[in-house]
Amino acid sequence: MQKLVSLGEILMRLTSENNLRFSQADKFEVVYGGSEANVLITAANFGLNTDLVTVLPDNDIGRTAVSDLKINEVGTGNILFEKGRLGLYFLEQGAVNRSSKVIYDRKNSAFSEINREWFNWEEILKDCDWFHWSGITPAISQNAADVCRDAIETAAAMGITISADLNYRANLWQYESDPPETMKEFVAKSDILLAGHYACQQFFDLRTKDGSNKELAERLKEKFPKLKKIAVTNRKEINASHHKWSASLFNGSDVLESDLYDIFPIVDRVGTGDSFMGALIYGFQNYDDQKALDFATAASSLKHTIPGDFNRVTKEEVLKLVEGDRSGRISR
Amino acid sequence: MQKLVSLGEILMRLTSENNLRFSQADKFEVVYGGSEANVLITAANFGLNTDLVTVLPDNDIGRTAVSDLKINEVGTGNILFEKGRLGLYFLEQGAVNRSSKVIYDRKNSAFSEINREWFNWEEILKDCDWFHWSGITPAISQNAADVCRDAIETAAAMGITISADLNYRANLWQYESDPPETMKEFVAKSDILLAGHYACQQFFDLRTKDGSNKELAERLKEKFPKLKKIAVTNRKEINASHHKWSASLFNGSDVLESDLYDIFPIVDRVGTGDSFMGALIYGFQNYDDQKALDFATAASSLKHTIPGDFNRVTKEEVLKLVEGDRSGRISR
Amino acid sequence: MQKLVSLGEILMRLTSENNLRFSQADKFEVVYGGSEANVLITAANFGLNTDLVTVLPDNDIGRTAVSDLKINEVGTGNILFEKGRLGLYFLEQGAVNRSSKVIYDRKNSAFSEINREWFNWEEILKDCDWFHWSGITPAISQNAADVCRDAIETAAAMGITISADLNYRANLWQYESDPPETMKEFVAKSDILLAGHYACQQFFDLRTKDGSNKELAERLKEKFPKLKKIAVTNRKEINASHHKWSASLFNGSDVLESDLYDIFPIVDRVGTGDSFMGALIYGFQNYDDQKALDFATAASSLKHTIPGDFNRVTKEEVLKLVEGDRSGRISR
Amino acid sequence: MQKLVSLGEILMRLTSENNLRFSQADKFEVVYGGSEANVLITAANFGLNTDLVTVLPDNDIGRTAVSDLKINEVGTGNILFEKGRLGLYFLEQGAVNRSSKVIYDRKNSAFSEINREWFNWEEILKDCDWFHWSGITPAISQNAADVCRDAIETAAAMGITISADLNYRANLWQYESDPPETMKEFVAKSDILLAGHYACQQFFDLRTKDGSNKELAERLKEKFPKLKKIAVTNRKEINASHHKWSASLFNGSDVLESDLYDIFPIVDRVGTGDSFMGALIYGFQNYDDQKALDFATAASSLKHTIPGDFNRVTKEEVLKLVEGDRSGRISR
Amino acid sequence: MQKLVSLGEILMRLTSENNLRFSQADKFEVVYGGSEANVLITAANFGLNTDLVTVLPDNDIGRTAVSDLKINEVGTGNILFEKGRLGLYFLEQGAVNRSSKVIYDRKNSAFSEINREWFNWEEILKDCDWFHWSGITPAISQNAADVCRDAIETAAAMGITISADLNYRANLWQYESDPPETMKEFVAKSDILLAGHYACQQFFDLRTKDGSNKELAERLKEKFPKLKKIAVTNRKEINASHHKWSASLFNGSDVLESDLYDIFPIVDRVGTGDSFMGALIYGFQNYDDQKALDFATAASSLKHTIPGDFNRVTKEEVLKLVEGDRSGRISR
Amino acid sequence: MQKLVSLGEILMRLTSENNLRFSQADKFEVVYGGSEANVLITAANFGLNTDLVTVLPDNDIGRTAVSDLKINEVGTGNILFEKGRLGLYFLEQGAVNRSSKVIYDRKNSAFSEINREWFNWEEILKDCDWFHWSGITPAISQNAADVCRDAIETAAAMGITISADLNYRANLWQYESDPPETMKEFVAKSDILLAGHYACQQFFDLRTKDGSNKELAERLKEKFPKLKKIAVTNRKEINASHHKWSASLFNGSDVLESDLYDIFPIVDRVGTGDSFMGALIYGFQNYDDQKALDFATAASSLKHTIPGDFNRVTKEEVLKLVEGDRSGRISR
Repeated sequence: MQKLVSLGEILMRLTSENNLRFSQADKFEVVYGGSEANVLITAANFGLNTDLVTVLPDNDIGRTAVSDLKINEVGTGNILFEKGRLGLYFLEQGAVNRSSKVIYDRKNSAFSEINREWFNWEEILKDCDWFHWSGITPAISQNAADVCRDAIETAAAMGITISADLNYRANLWQYESDPPETMKEFVAKSDILLAGHYACQQFFDLRTKDGSNKELAERLKEKFPKLKKIAVTNRKEINASHHKWSASLFNGSDVLESDLYDIFPIVDRVGTGDSFMGALIYGFQNYDDQKALDFATAASSLKHTIPGDFNRVTKEEVLKLVEGDRSGRISR
Repeated sequence: MQKLVSLGEILMRLTSENNLRFSQADKFEVVYGGSEANVLITAANFGLNTDLVTVLPDNDIGRTAVSDLKINEVGTGNILFEKGRLGLYFLEQGAVNRSSKVIYDRKNSAFSEINREWFNWEEILKDCDWFHWSGITPAISQNAADVCRDAIETAAAMGITISADLNYRANLWQYESDPPETMKEFVAKSDILLAGHYACQQFFDLRTKDGSNKELAERLKEKFPKLKKIAVTNRKEINASHHKWSASLFNGSDVLESDLYDIFPIVDRVGTGDSFMGALIYGFQNYDDQKALDFATAASSLKHTIPGDFNRVTKEEVLKLVEGDRSGRISR
Repeated sequence: MQKLVSLGEILMRLTSENNLRFSQADKFEVVYGGSEANVLITAANFGLNTDLVTVLPDNDIGRTAVSDLKINEVGTGNILFEKGRLGLYFLEQGAVNRSSKVIYDRKNSAFSEINREWFNWEEILKDCDWFHWSGITPAISQNAADVCRDAIETAAAMGITISADLNYRANLWQYESDPPETMKEFVAKSDILLAGHYACQQFFDLRTKDGSNKELAERLKEKFPKLKKIAVTNRKEINASHHKWSASLFNGSDVLESDLYDIFPIVDRVGTGDSFMGALIYGFQNYDDQKALDFATAASSLKHTIPGDFNRVTKEEVLKLVEGDRSGRISR
Repeated sequence: MQKLVSLGEILMRLTSENNLRFSQADKFEVVYGGSEANVLITAANFGLNTDLVTVLPDNDIGRTAVSDLKINEVGTGNILFEKGRLGLYFLEQGAVNRSSKVIYDRKNSAFSEINREWFNWEEILKDCDWFHWSGITPAISQNAADVCRDAIETAAAMGITISADLNYRANLWQYESDPPETMKEFVAKSDILLAGHYACQQFFDLRTKDGSNKELAERLKEKFPKLKKIAVTNRKEINASHHKWSASLFNGSDVLESDLYDIFPIVDRVGTGDSFMGALIYGFQNYDDQKALDFATAASSLKHTIPGDFNRVTKEEVLKLVEGDRSGRISR
Repeated sequence: MQKLVSLGEILMRLTSENNLRFSQADKFEVVYGGSEANVLITAANFGLNTDLVTVLPDNDIGRTAVSDLKINEVGTGNILFEKGRLGLYFLEQGAVNRSSKVIYDRKNSAFSEINREWFNWEEILKDCDWFHWSGITPAISQNAADVCRDAIETAAAMGITISADLNYRANLWQYESDPPETMKEFVAKSDILLAGHYACQQFFDLRTKDGSNKELAERLKEKFPKLKKIAVTNRKEINASHHKWSASLFNGSDVLESDLYDIFPIVDRVGTGDSFMGALIYGFQNYDDQKALDFATAASSLKHTIPGDFNRVTKEEVLKLVEGDRSGRISR
Repeated sequence: MQKLVSLGEILMRLTSENNLRFSQADKFEVVYGGSEANVLITAANFGLNTDLVTVLPDNDIGRTAVSDLKINEVGTGNILFEKGRLGLYFLEQGAVNRSSKVIYDRKNSAFSEINREWFNWEEILKDCDWFHWSGITPAISQNAADVCRDAIETAAAMGITISADLNYRANLWQYESDPPETMKEFVAKSDILLAGHYACQQFFDLRTKDGSNKELAERLKEKFPKLKKIAVTNRKEINASHHKWSASLFNGSDVLESDLYDIFPIVDRVGTGDSFMGALIYGFQNYDDQKALDFATAASSLKHTIPGDFNRVTKEEVLKLVEGDRSGRISR
C-alpha cells in the first residue's frame, strides 16, 4: 500500500482522574484525538504510510495537538494552522452501573471553518491509494461537508479505495443540513463501510429484524452497490466496566464472524471503534478477510486497556492475541 | 416536604492512594464526611431542603469541613464553631481478599463536647417535617446522646417524622453508657428505621433464624410499635472488590424487595448505607413504597462507584438505573 | 528458628503509572526488590529473624535500596557497598488481554561483580539455621554463581536447612555457563524446593504428562534424593487482570493441595512467588505441612493486591484468610 | 453595608503544572474565576454580603463553576443556567525572564449570549448599596454591554454607589463596538474607579507625562466629574517571578500612597488586581481612605502567594501585614 | 562517643501541597517528625550512635512513624507501642508575606500518657554518654514531665552529658503546671543549652538589652552554673520565603560567631533548629568549638532546602559548605 | 542553511520531584536528552533543518527516546536501533546552598557500542552544511570516538562548517584513551568552538591569568588556527537557585560581550549550555556576530526556566528578551 489519507478534526480531551465526577475534579488529564486521527495512528503503528488533512488553531495548543501524530509518524504536511479555537470535550470515566459522561465543547472550532479553496485534492491524493472518512466530518459544518465531498469525489475519480465509518453523533449536524442526504451521497461513493445498526436507522431509515448483521449488510449492499465490504462491530455493554466485543464482516458473499472478547475491567473505551477501523484497513492490505477481521477485533479489544484515544499496540501484540493467547502473561 | 434536619458529626477522612497500605503512603487524600451529613447531601442533591446541626472546631480545618455541604446546598446555619479538634480517620482501601482498614482517631472531638444549652430545638425544627438521626451520635459521648435525645423528643412532640439508622459501631460507645437502653429509648420514638441483623443483635438482642429480613422487621415492629417502615440492606461481600447489593422494605404489611446489583469493581464503599437512607427519605416523599425502595437501592448502588463519602448522583441517573438500564453506556 | 539468611540481588523497579504504556510515561514509580529480598521481608514480617547478603553500589541510589529491608528489620550487616551500578528494570502494567511488559537493564551491576573473597560464610551463617537461594543468583554471573556455591556448600557442611526457588529466567545465564549443570549441583545440596513445570523442563529436561504436580515432585525427589519437601504453585492466567492461584506440596509421602484463590482484579503480580516462598518457610517453622501450605498460598494470594515487590501483610491477615474469611470486610 | 452586587462572567482556567510549557502538559489544573467573581469573593471573605449576576452553561461544568462562590458565601440566587459553553483559558506560568502565557478560548460562551430580558435590575438591586462592574463585561458582546448598561443605569437611578475597574483587554471588544464610547458612558455614571495608565490611553486617549498617578487621577476627575475616588495600582515587573507592588488613591483632594511590597517569588499573579478592588470596597466601608488603600494593597500583595484566581485571606492576615509585620513567621 | 539518647514525641505532619491553603487541599503530604527525633536523625546521619525513647500507638500508623528512624539507623529498641492516638499537625506552607500556618492536634496522644513505671533509665542509659531533651517534652503532660525528670536525674547521676533545647511552645503546657519552675529545675541539671531570647523571657523572665547573645548567655550561665556551653541561633525573617541565618556559641569564656547564610527561597523551614542541635552535638564530639558551631550552622542552613522534618545531608555536604563553597554547583 | 547534522547519545534522565533527595523519592520524572540532541532541538525550534545520528536500544524505551526529536522535527532517519541498553542518569534538584546531584548510569549503552561500519558519512552529510559535535561523544568509548573522527574528517573534507562544544566530563573518558590527544585532533579540524576555562585546562593545559575570556580565545586561536569563532559562557553561581549568566564571543578580531542575566530562581539548569550552542548556530546563520551572541545568551537564559533538557522557546520569545524586555509580563 502506498498511502492512507484521511480528513478529520482533532479535539482536546480533558478527563477527570480516577473516576472522579466533574464536580470533584481539580485536574484534567489532557490527550488529543479524533476519529480519523485515531484510525491513522492505529494504521501507522502497524506500518502503513499515512497522512492526515486537518485544520488546527495557530497557537501553542493547536501545535501541541499534532505531537502524537508526529511521534507515530502520521504525515502532517497537509495540516493547516489557522485562526480559531481547538474543539474540546470533557470526559468523566464511569464505573459499573455509572455511565461515563461526555460534555462536548467543539462548536466554532478552527476546523469547522475549513475552506474548500485551501485544498488541492489531486495533489494531496497523488501517492495515495486509500482514502478514509467518517460521518463526523460532514456533521461538523457545511464547510467541512463540502471539503469532505471534494475529497471523496476526487478520490473516487482517481480510483482510490474509499472507506467510511458512519459514526453517527446526534449532537452534531447542527448547521442547516439534511444528514441522510449527505451521508447517502458520500456512502454511495465508498467501497468499504463500518456500520452500526443505530446509525443505519438514523441515516438510512434501515431497520433489521433481530439486529441481524447479515441482513443489515445485505440491505446496505443493495442500497449502495459500490460497497465491497461491510463491517459491523458488536458491543454488549454489561455495564460501564465490562463489555463483550466482537465483529462481523460481510465481504459480498459471506458474513464472517470474529472471536468474542470479554473485556473487564475496561481501562479506556474511547477510540475503540477507530482502532478497529485502522486495524481493518491494515488487515485488508496484508491478510485474507477472516484474518483481517480477527486482527481488527483483537487490536480493538486491546485498545480498551490503553489510556487515551490512540491504540498504542504493535502488530506482534495483536497477532499473539489473534493466535489465541489471552493469558496476558508478563512479557519479559 | 419542607425540610429534612439531622444532627451528626463530620470527620476528616485520610485515604492512602491507589490501594497502598498505610506503611507505603506518603500522601493522604482528604475528604470530609459523616453518616448524617452523607444522608443530607444525598437528599439535597435530589432536591430536598435540608439542614445539618453539628459542632466543628473553630479553625481553618473545621471551616473547610463544611465546603461540600455548602456546595450541595445543605443548610449550615445551625453549625457551631467551637474550641477543639476535628475527629478523623485513616482509610486504607483493600482489594480482592485484602480488607479495607480503618483507624479511627475521633475521640475528644469538638462535636463530642457538644452542649445541650447551645441548641433551641423548637427553633431549629420550626420549618422541618422530617428529622433523621443515626446510632453514631449517641455513641460518641454522653453530651452527644443528650443533645440527640433533646432533638428526638422535640421532634416527636412537634409531630415531625423521625427516621433512624442503627449504624452499630463497636468501637464507639466508650463513655459510661448502656447502648441498648439508649437505643431502645430513641428507636421507640422513631417512625422509620434502617436496620441490620448484626446491629439488632447488639442493641436489642434480637436474632432471626436464617437471617430473614421479614422476621427481623416483624419483631422490630413488635418491639417498637411506633415504627411504620423498616428497611434492611443486604450486602453480600464476595470480597473487598465485589459486592452484591439489594434491600428489603417492610411497610407494616408487606416485605418489598429491590432488584439485586452486582457491583464489581467497587470504587468506594464508604457512605453507601447513608446514600441508601438519603435516597429512601427522598423516595418516600415522591414515590410509592416499592419505587422508593428501588430508588434508594439504585442510588446506593451508584454510590459504590464514586470516590469520597458523598453520593454525587442526580435523580435522572438513579431513575435510568431504576428503569433497568445497567449498560453504563457513555452519556454524551 | 534462629535466623534465615539469603544471598541475592536487589533491583530498582521503574513502573509507569495507571496502566500507561512506556511510550506514555512521564513518570515512573520507584520501588526496590529482588526475589531473595522479597522472601526475607515476607518472612521477617511474620516474625522470623533474617539477614540478606548482597552487594549494592556505593552511592545514594544503592543506599536507598536497603530502606525497606531496614524498615522491615531484615538484617543488613552483611551488605557491601561497592563500585558499580544498580541493576534495574522497567515495568508496564498490562490489563485484561494486554500483557504486562518488563524491560530488564541489569547487566554489569555491582552485584554481578561480587567477589568470593569478600565473604566468610562460616561467619555469616554462624547463628543461621536456614539458608535460601534462588536460580536467579547463579544466573547473573560466574562470580555470583561462585559465591552462591560457597554459601550452599558451607550451609550444607554446617547442617543448615537449604531451600531453593528454581526461578528460571531465560534472559539471564548470559555468561559462559551450563545452567543445567550448575542448577543440578546446587539443587542436589538443597532440602526444600519451590519448582515449576517449565523451569524443570529447562533445567532438568524433566517433563510430566498432563502437568501432574505429583509426578513432577516424585521425579524431582528421585533425581535429588536430599530434597525433603517440594512445592509447586499453580497459576492459571485467565488474563492479565485475573488469575486463579493455588499450590501443591509434596512432603515425601503425600501431595497436599491448598485452596484455590480467584484473584481479580490483580493489583500487582510481581513478587507473588517470593511471598509464597517466604510464607512457606515461616509456615514450616510454625505449622504442620498442610497449614504451612495453606498459609503460604493465602499470603501470596494477598500479595497480588499490594503495590510493589514486597508482601506487606501481617500474620493475622493471612490467618483470617486461611480460616476462610474471603469477605474483605472493612476492618475497623 | 447591605449588599455588594456585580455582573460578570466566570471562566474555567486550565493551568499547566510546575512551570511546564503547554507543549509539555499532560495535565491541567482546573480553577474557575472571573474579574467580578474574584472581587466578590475577596469582599465576602472579609465579611461583606455579596451577590453575583451571571450566566453559566446548564451542565455539570457550569454547575461546578459556582462551587467556590457557594463555599465563600457569595450569593448565587441571580445566576442563570442556560444553553451554551463555558468560556475558558489556558495559562502557562512563566518564570524569571519567561513570560506567563494565556490562550483565551472564551468566545460564544453562554454568558456572551446573555439577554436583557432575563433580568429585573430593580429587583436584583433591591437590598444593594454598591454595584461593581468591570471593563471586561461590555467587551464580551453587545448583549453583555446592554445588560451592563441596564445594571449601571438602574443602580445610578437608585442612588447606589457604583465602582468600576477599567480592565482593558485588547483581545476582547470583538463585536462591532466603539469601546471608548461605551466606556465613557459607563464610567461617567460611576463613583469609584480603579484605573491604569495604559487602559486610560486606550479608552480615553488620556496620556500623562512621566506616568504621574496624580495627573492621571486629576484628568479622569475632570473628564468624569461624578467620580469620587480613583485608585491606581503600580506594578513594577522586575521579571515574571518578581514584582514590586503599591497603589495610589486620589480621593478628590489628595493623592494617598500605600507602602511598597516586594513580591518574590510570585506564586500566582492572576486576580491580584481584582483582590485589590474587592479589598478596597471593603476598606471604604470600614476604614478611612488611607487605611482602605493600605488594606487593599496588603490584601492584593498576599494574593500573589495564593494559587488560583481567588484571594483566600482573612481580614486578620491582611491587618497584620498593614501593621507592618512582613516576617511571614509561622503562625501556630 | 558511645551513644546519644533522647526522649520525645513523634508527630504526623500533614502538609498541603504547593503552597495551597488548607481550604484548597484535597491531599496532604505525610511525614513524621518531632524535635528530639529530628536531633537524633541528624546526628545519626553524621555517624553517631543514637537511640530514641518514645511511646507510639500500637497500630499501623504508629508503626509507620518509626520507619525513618530505622532507615537512618536511630535505635528503636526503647520505643513502646501502647493504646492511644498519634499526635498530628497540619501545615500550610506560606510564601513571601504570607505566613505558614500550623494547626496542632496533638492532645491526648499515646505519648502524653507515658508512664514512669515503663522505663528503667539506668538500663536505657547504660552505654550512653550524652542525653538530650527539649522543652517540648515536659510541656506535653505531667506524665511526660515526670518521665523527663527521671531521665535527666538518672543521666546526671550517671555523669552523662546533658543537652537541652528550650523550644518554647505557648500552646503546650496545658496541664496544671508551672512551666518556669519545671524548666529551671531541668536546665539546672543540664550541661549544654540551645536557647532563644523569647524562650528565656517566657521561662526565666530573662530580658536582654538590644537582644545581645553575649548578655543572654552570660546571664544564663549565672543562673544555671552547671551550663558549660550555650548556643543561640539568629533567624532574621525577611519574609516567609527568605531568612538570614547564623548562630552564636558561648563556651564559658568567649562568644563565637558563625558565618551568615542567606536562605532564599526556603524549601522547608520545619526542623531547622533541631538540625542545628543534632549537628552541634556531633560537632562537639569531633571538632573544636568554632568548627562545631560552623558545622551546626551550615548543616541547619542546608536543612532549609530539604522537604520534611529530617535533615538528610551528609557530613561531606556540610563540610563543603563550612569550607565556603556556596556555589551549589552540580555534583556529578 | 541546508542542514545541521550532529552525532551524539541520548540518555534517559530520572529526576526526583520537588527538590526531594534521592532517599525520599518514590517517583522519578522521566525526560530524555543529550548534549547534541539538545543543540539540534533548540536549533530546529528556531527553524533550522536538522538531523541526529545516534544509536538507541531496540526496545520500547529506546523508541520512546526519540519522541521529542520527532515532535520538534529533528530528522531521525539516521538513528539506528540496536541491541543494548539506554544510558541514564538520576538527577536530584538542589536549592540555595544545596547542590544538585547527578548519578550517572550510562556505561555499556547501545550507543557506546556504535560501529564505524554502520555509517556512510558522505551519504549522511550530503545535504548538510554544518556539522556539530561535542566532547562527550569521543569520551564515551573508543568506538564512539572513531565514529566521531569519521564524521569530522568527512565533514572537513566536504567543506562543511564544523562546530564543537568541549563539554569536559571528568567521569567519562574511561576507556584507554588520551583525552587531550583526541580533543586536539578533533578541535584542530573545527571552525567554531564553545569553550570553557576549566575544559581548556583539562584538555589543552591552557590556563589564563584572571580568567580572561579574551586571552583564552586568543590562545585557542593560536593553538587551533582553523578556528574562526570562539564562544565562552560565563556562569556565576551565587548558589544552586541563583546564577548570573552572560557570554563572550571572539570572532577573530574582537571579543564581543553579551548582556548579563540574573536568573533567580532557576527552574532547570540542565541543557543550558546546549541551548546556547544551538541558538548560536542559528544566530550565525541569521544575524551578525553581536546579535548572534545576544540571541544565544538570551535563549539560554530562558532555558533556565524550562523543565527538562530541551529549550522549548520560540524565536519571538528570544528576540523580545534580546530587545530588552525582561518584564516577564503575561502574554495574552
